[in-house]
Amino acid sequence: MAGDGTGVLFRVTTFGESHGPALGAVVEGCPPGLALDIDALQADLDRRRPGQSKLTTPRKEADRVEVLSGLFEGRTTGTAIALLLRNEGAYSKSYDHVRDLYRPGHADFTYAARYGVRDHRGGGRASARETAARVAAAAIARQWLAAAHGVEVLGWVASVADVEAVVDAGAVTREAVEAHATRCPDPTAAAAMEAAIKAARADGDTLGGVVGCLARGVPAGWGAPVFDRLEADLAKACLSLPACKGFEIGSGFAGTRLRGTEHNDAFVMEGDRVRTATNRAGGVLGGISTGEDILVRAAFKPVSSHFAPQQTVTTDGRATTFRNKGRHDPCVLPRAVPLVEAAMLLTLADHALRAAAVRG
Amino acid sequence: MAGDGTGVLFRVTTFGESHGPALGAVVEGCPPGLALDIDALQADLDRRRPGQSKLTTPRKEADRVEVLSGLFEGRTTGTAIALLLRNEGAYSKSYDHVRDLYRPGHADFTYAARYGVRDHRGGGRASARETAARVAAAAIARQWLAAAHGVEVLGWVASVADVEAVVDAGAVTREAVEAHATRCPDPTAAAAMEAAIKAARADGDTLGGVVGCLARGVPAGWGAPVFDRLEADLAKACLSLPACKGFEIGSGFAGTRLRGTEHNDAFVMEGDRVRTATNRAGGVLGGISTGEDILVRAAFKPVSSHFAPQQTVTTDGRATTFRNKGRHDPCVLPRAVPLVEAAMLLTLADHALRAAAVRG
Amino acid sequence: MAGDGTGVLFRVTTFGESHGPALGAVVEGCPPGLALDIDALQADLDRRRPGQSKLTTPRKEADRVEVLSGLFEGRTTGTAIALLLRNEGAYSKSYDHVRDLYRPGHADFTYAARYGVRDHRGGGRASARETAARVAAAAIARQWLAAAHGVEVLGWVASVADVEAVVDAGAVTREAVEAHATRCPDPTAAAAMEAAIKAARADGDTLGGVVGCLARGVPAGWGAPVFDRLEADLAKACLSLPACKGFEIGSGFAGTRLRGTEHNDAFVMEGDRVRTATNRAGGVLGGISTGEDILVRAAFKPVSSHFAPQQTVTTDGRATTFRNKGRHDPCVLPRAVPLVEAAMLLTLADHALRAAAVRG
Amino acid sequence: MAGDGTGVLFRVTTFGESHGPALGAVVEGCPPGLALDIDALQADLDRRRPGQSKLTTPRKEADRVEVLSGLFEGRTTGTAIALLLRNEGAYSKSYDHVRDLYRPGHADFTYAARYGVRDHRGGGRASARETAARVAAAAIARQWLAAAHGVEVLGWVASVADVEAVVDAGAVTREAVEAHATRCPDPTAAAAMEAAIKAARADGDTLGGVVGCLARGVPAGWGAPVFDRLEADLAKACLSLPACKGFEIGSGFAGTRLRGTEHNDAFVMEGDRVRTATNRAGGVLGGISTGEDILVRAAFKPVSSHFAPQQTVTTDGRATTFRNKGRHDPCVLPRAVPLVEAAMLLTLADHALRAAAVRG
Repeated sequence: MAGDGTGVLFRVTTFGESHGPALGAVVEGCPPGLALDIDALQADLDRRRPGQSKLTTPRKEADRVEVLSGLFEGRTTGTAIALLLRNEGAYSKSYDHVRDLYRPGHADFTYAARYGVRDHRGGGRASARETAARVAAAAIARQWLAAAHGVEVLGWVASVADVEAVVDAGAVTREAVEAHATRCPDPTAAAAMEAAIKAARADGDTLGGVVGCLARGVPAGWGAPVFDRLEADLAKACLSLPACKGFEIGSGFAGTRLRGTEHNDAFVMEGDRVRTATNRAGGVLGGISTGEDILVRAAFKPVSSHFAPQQTVTTDGRATTFRNKGRHDPCVLPRAVPLVEAAMLLTLADHALRAAAVRG
Repeated sequence: MAGDGTGVLFRVTTFGESHGPALGAVVEGCPPGLALDIDALQADLDRRRPGQSKLTTPRKEADRVEVLSGLFEGRTTGTAIALLLRNEGAYSKSYDHVRDLYRPGHADFTYAARYGVRDHRGGGRASARETAARVAAAAIARQWLAAAHGVEVLGWVASVADVEAVVDAGAVTREAVEAHATRCPDPTAAAAMEAAIKAARADGDTLGGVVGCLARGVPAGWGAPVFDRLEADLAKACLSLPACKGFEIGSGFAGTRLRGTEHNDAFVMEGDRVRTATNRAGGVLGGISTGEDILVRAAFKPVSSHFAPQQTVTTDGRATTFRNKGRHDPCVLPRAVPLVEAAMLLTLADHALRAAAVRG
Repeated sequence: MAGDGTGVLFRVTTFGESHGPALGAVVEGCPPGLALDIDALQADLDRRRPGQSKLTTPRKEADRVEVLSGLFEGRTTGTAIALLLRNEGAYSKSYDHVRDLYRPGHADFTYAARYGVRDHRGGGRASARETAARVAAAAIARQWLAAAHGVEVLGWVASVADVEAVVDAGAVTREAVEAHATRCPDPTAAAAMEAAIKAARADGDTLGGVVGCLARGVPAGWGAPVFDRLEADLAKACLSLPACKGFEIGSGFAGTRLRGTEHNDAFVMEGDRVRTATNRAGGVLGGISTGEDILVRAAFKPVSSHFAPQQTVTTDGRATTFRNKGRHDPCVLPRAVPLVEAAMLLTLADHALRAAAVRG
Repeated sequence: MAGDGTGVLFRVTTFGESHGPALGAVVEGCPPGLALDIDALQADLDRRRPGQSKLTTPRKEADRVEVLSGLFEGRTTGTAIALLLRNEGAYSKSYDHVRDLYRPGHADFTYAARYGVRDHRGGGRASARETAARVAAAAIARQWLAAAHGVEVLGWVASVADVEAVVDAGAVTREAVEAHATRCPDPTAAAAMEAAIKAARADGDTLGGVVGCLARGVPAGWGAPVFDRLEADLAKACLSLPACKGFEIGSGFAGTRLRGTEHNDAFVMEGDRVRTATNRAGGVLGGISTGEDILVRAAFKPVSSHFAPQQTVTTDGRATTFRNKGRHDPCVLPRAVPLVEAAMLLTLADHALRAAAVRG
């Protein structure tokens, strides 16, 4: 409960810093008997990897995953699965200039305040590099959710800065998302986003945006009352992602402008199954899944590492000016898609197991 | 970990249904020696109570709190504090018409899907009535946070439907919030909100809106890395509130439209203290508090209990039409303010204790 | 996680002090649909009650339980069940003489060390009175385990001071246990125990002893690897009982004197079922149940409240002599039987739910 | 909460099987700023290692530990520390003969019952090899407890089969324990134990015994009320060790034969400090430390892997005879000493952090 782990039954603990020897995750509670597809796991990691397109940082992270435990003859045993990712291409020296100051927008100051010591290299434990471990763990959740429950989780870039995509969540596919380096399935918006990102990079500036994400195939009845509502755990999972500043489920903030008569989703029968005619709820009512698609949105602030000079202070309390060096994504959104998917996947896998325990 | 509790060290477990004998909360981990002000606790409860103004439901809930344990000669002992609220004014018969159907926008269907059985009276455990227990527990957190750390948590209504208030978070006071029945400290907006709420009630319709909330006085260094980031726990706490569909911290969704050069908060010295010149971060960086005000916003959908006829299905799978009876708030926002405060208070109290443990 | 609660999925949180207004428990995660038998729950409480026989303290505690939540039309809903026990017959004044000193063998000093404040009346939160709440919660676990899994948990007094009973665990019945006020099913030993207890009381002295307890009907496969082994959670549950100083499962300490060739239980088939020919393991191997009876023993020190003068110190650090007043059990063993049963019941109910989640 | 982890604030999660690629542990919550002595950590591991003396199995496990995260310039950062131990010398083929049967006394059958699948090689996750990861994690706890609180944890072999040592717990030293391959600080008993172990090995048989362990320097006030009593967590930690069947604290089972007048420890002043004249309590009262030495004993059954033929069943339900091959310890006691120390160290480190949080 010290913060490096999440989940009650499908529990994931991660470790590792940006410039330490390795990152990794321990996955507890993955059901036994799953034939783990390591290539598919690696493919999930590759979607998060830097350097995958011309829009992302060229930092080289091969991020080859090694499974250290929990597999026997290719299948999960039900006990802890450890995943290891060695760090490569990490040149600590390039961070010497930030050792004695606090970078604005980063966790340098707050980690120093909390711990007294701080690994200044690339943000240390606060680096977004940590999310590689989450994505690897979530890839296991993805495979289990698909095999056991037919659940699919799929995210996309919904906006970059002012450019908003038009996306039909009911129809969006992985292929459409992956068709463009932006991971925006609206080609017109994707082109505009790409242009915006390139322009920002040319300026040495950075952009933010919004990721949309859905889960298809979640049955009615996952979730919990009161504090561990499914939407609450989804919100926590998203807000635990670096740079995430907002979360919506279903109608979200826009829904606050509707009237009750406009907002409620009517129940209808579809054969034997209770459905809702619309899905402004976003797939949850009272903290428990309805069986409709679960629809969330996560807001990401513009990347903190831009290249303009910034006013800041040194660790010994003097005003100074700081300017980033090195290589940084001008816009994290394309790579944030697998992160939001990971947030949903880990939350859903945990609640799937919890739902299995309800009747003992 | 079954969902009725929250927190690691300042842990709160609630119980009770809308129309059962009683609600209550058990508060573990409240530090010893706090002189608990029961009147102030009751005053916090009264702010949540229905019937407190002409804008809220007239359901009578005296909600007198009884402290059952954990106090000795008026001071906390450090062991579990139990709070009891007897239900009154609960006329279960008025729910007979919903026993055999699922109300749209409510948790009737999802609870049935999860548990097989369902207490149909007023939503049972899913009722917003449960939040009385949280508010009572949070009142203890409020008193301890104020006494031990000088922390103040203060919320307000930021919008109702299309009516948006203009609020200077740095200057807002409890008095300004309580000056109007809407709990909106912008008098012009408050008047417009009141008119909108009355108009909706006249239509038998309902409204949603947004609550803003801040915490003043939180020192730098509260929070945790990775999964238990302070903003993640705040998001979870807010999304665990009934009808909450969105959460923002700091710049939130609007911040996604800024550039990095516009968004980062510069660090500056104020005497010995590291401050930020602006506070788009909303008081957290990398999951840990900066020492600036923590600023969140929570979106609430329009109340599900409007009075127009609604299409739905019966528990045995036939289409039917449902129409609410009885008394319901046309707009939950004024009463949602103490709920969002409670969400912040419980989260902060827990992280305050966790911060105290960091160096052992 | 502050200490007042236990269990992951079947989670119980208790509250209350010896001389406060009330005690109680909140039970989370009890599966829905259980027809709760309140009379049977009360009967479990009555077995723990003081004043039930001539061997126990005459303190009057009617201990009528009230169910505050989690029931609908007599059945559990799957959400939090709160149980309330009002304190009666508690004369705080009789503790005035202990206010300013630390009673040997009690938690007075350690609570003061931990919390700075201390409720001196009857031990406050450290009083064995707290166990009434556990027994009430465990009565729910008992009913669910019986209804859902056919599990029976049954304890007995195995020894009092030097008097050891001869008990055939495979054959012992509730009737045999309840046939004698000592709760020892060996009539000869029971008579000797009674004599020993009466003699100790006549001396103003107190006795300890050992409780044996078994669970019948637990299927193979309950438990968990590594840290949450079933025997580990059983040990924790027993050692969390007041005055408990030791725990054994299966062959226990005596088994350390056997050779491996004597100790291992051979596997044999009984129809389709894998059984062991003997049960020195006590029903667990590697932390997981074998399907054989689970057999534990818990050691209870002699009651700390004897009536001889004792050397101690005052709260301000001066040597003094203390002598108990009032009414105290000379031997807690007969009343410890339902406590050890409660420890087993809560642990088994939790692991039953966890087992149900293994395959998701 | 899936069983592979333990602790609330100082939280350790382990992974790895006997014959998988690696074992390891993730340690969360270790306070920042500790200068970790890797050589001392390795030395703790070496005390657990097989092949360290003529009394233990010659299986070669170099068990070189690698620290993957959580260190910066040799000091802990306060974030997750991952430890990696590669498996070597593991010849899976030597287990082919156990693939299709259940070894008596091992977890083969119970893991199959729980998970449906089973890694038969050396017990898989149920192997005592897992304890290497715990010992490594506990070595960090040891260093922090010593540096921050001056706490020393020291164990010894108290008995092997019928041979009981005479040990003055107040005076025992690490040097005395390590002076003999048995880790028994009583030279006469040590010689008898060695003879007994060699005789058992000559017979192809195995022995059990008891480990005694103490913690010196724990201040008064560590622990928690009710369910998380310090002795309860210590019992759980010990019973989570492979082959452990019993636990005692202080007077334990023998204390049940004393009278209250004999058992209570009188309080006395020693300067400003409240002490007890004796320590039958074993350093805890009411779940909280007294400041005296904490004294526990843990019972270990004889090793299950003896070399006589054993009756058992195949995985498809036929009776068969099984005979161990390969290399196994005839007596685990000398190597169990660091395991019990690890159990105490991890429990104490967690409660130290929890104690630091009590007053927020």
